[in-house]
Amino acid sequence: MPSYTLYYFNGRGRAEICRMIFAAAAIQYNDKRIELSEWTQFKTKMPCHMLPILEIDTDTQVPQSMAISRYLAREFGFHGKNNVDMFKVDSICDSLFELFNDYMTLFNEKDAAKKPDLQKRYMDTCRRVLPYLEKTLEANKGGSGWFIGDQMLFCDMMCYAGLENPVQENPNFLKDYPKLAGLRNRVAAHPKIASYIKKRNNTAF
Amino acid sequence: MPSYTLYYFNGRGRAEICRMIFAAAAIQYNDKRIELSEWTQFKTKMPCHMLPILEIDTDTQVPQSMAISRYLAREFGFHGKNNVDMFKVDSICDSLFELFNDYMTLFNEKDAAKKPDLQKRYMDTCRRVLPYLEKTLEANKGGSGWFIGDQMLFCDMMCYAGLENPVQENPNFLKDYPKLAGLRNRVAAHPKIASYIKKRNNTAF
Repeated sequence: MPSYTLYYFNGRGRAEICRMIFAAAAIQYNDKRIELSEWTQFKTKMPCHMLPILEIDTDTQVPQSMAISRYLAREFGFHGKNNVDMFKVDSICDSLFELFNDYMTLFNEKDAAKKPDLQKRYMDTCRRVLPYLEKTLEANKGGSGWFIGDQMLFCDMMCYAGLENPVQENPNFLKDYPKLAGLRNRVAAHPKIASYIKKRNNTAF
Repeated sequence: MPSYTLYYFNGRGRAEICRMIFAAAAIQYNDKRIELSEWTQFKTKMPCHMLPILEIDTDTQVPQSMAISRYLAREFGFHGKNNVDMFKVDSICDSLFELFNDYMTLFNEKDAAKKPDLQKRYMDTCRRVLPYLEKTLEANKGGSGWFIGDQMLFCDMMCYAGLENPVQENPNFLKDYPKLAGLRNRVAAHPKIASYIKKRNNTAF
């Protein structure tokens, strides 16, 4: 087993899905959190100026949160049993990432005059992505289990992590998507995830 | 071998990387191009209101261009030999997709007043992503071959497809990144890709 270090800021943000996969797999890793005051100096030491980064055995450092998540999901058995299942998992995750990314762009915008356009884009993405995900979930056993097959996969965890901020901000966010709301409750109640959520750093984003 | 139909508009856009992988693998597929006038009606027939969509054997329809590309890359041997290689391929592709996505958002914006902000975001992404990719390429045999190992993979094709519009618009786009410029020439000269580029629809985007 290689050693893993995950570098990110002290927040859930783009790294939380990676941390959830580590938790679900019960794999030890170094959860290295960079303070904003350290970031400028840290950047110059890294091969790429992006976070999160996953370091494997101190010699391989690779950025991009979703690439990291897919690597961990394949490594620890959360990416589907065959190529078509992996394809469906990826499509769900990429759709959730679109929504998450639009939310983060809106959240991080400091100029109030620019917020309405970003809000519109985010809402358009919600209206496009959420009905697709609700239907996809419903197609597997009426939507009472997981997105694909019989066990929690990467896409189920992404449904929790990717929608965490929208749901915190607006508890009615999923009121028209009861199957997705139910899935998020099942992910949160998964023994390894429940234990992780209980002990994780309590951060604002 | 299943039958494949790729649905997209009549343009390169988000589907071109999928078409390039089909071409490199010499796999037949139905390249179904939806006219803008057909789009409203077409949308209602599809399980999700997004393009591109890959249909497998008429019963499985899955959206998200990069999820489709990764599925095809795994299926036809363009996604790396092991999980760490797949991770590196994905990281490169996701970085290129960020840049491509910012370019497309800028390109599609009709309101001139909104262009400067989008232009800035796009340029920031270029300054963050391109040096990382140039260094990553250089780390493999001095940058004279492919990103990873000894053969053309998904990430090499994405370096061609994802940068096609920026390079068409500005022939000096890669002047500070000679290794990436060289890689794009090698992709274009790959026999299967060269033959595909020669015969493909000549569209504006």
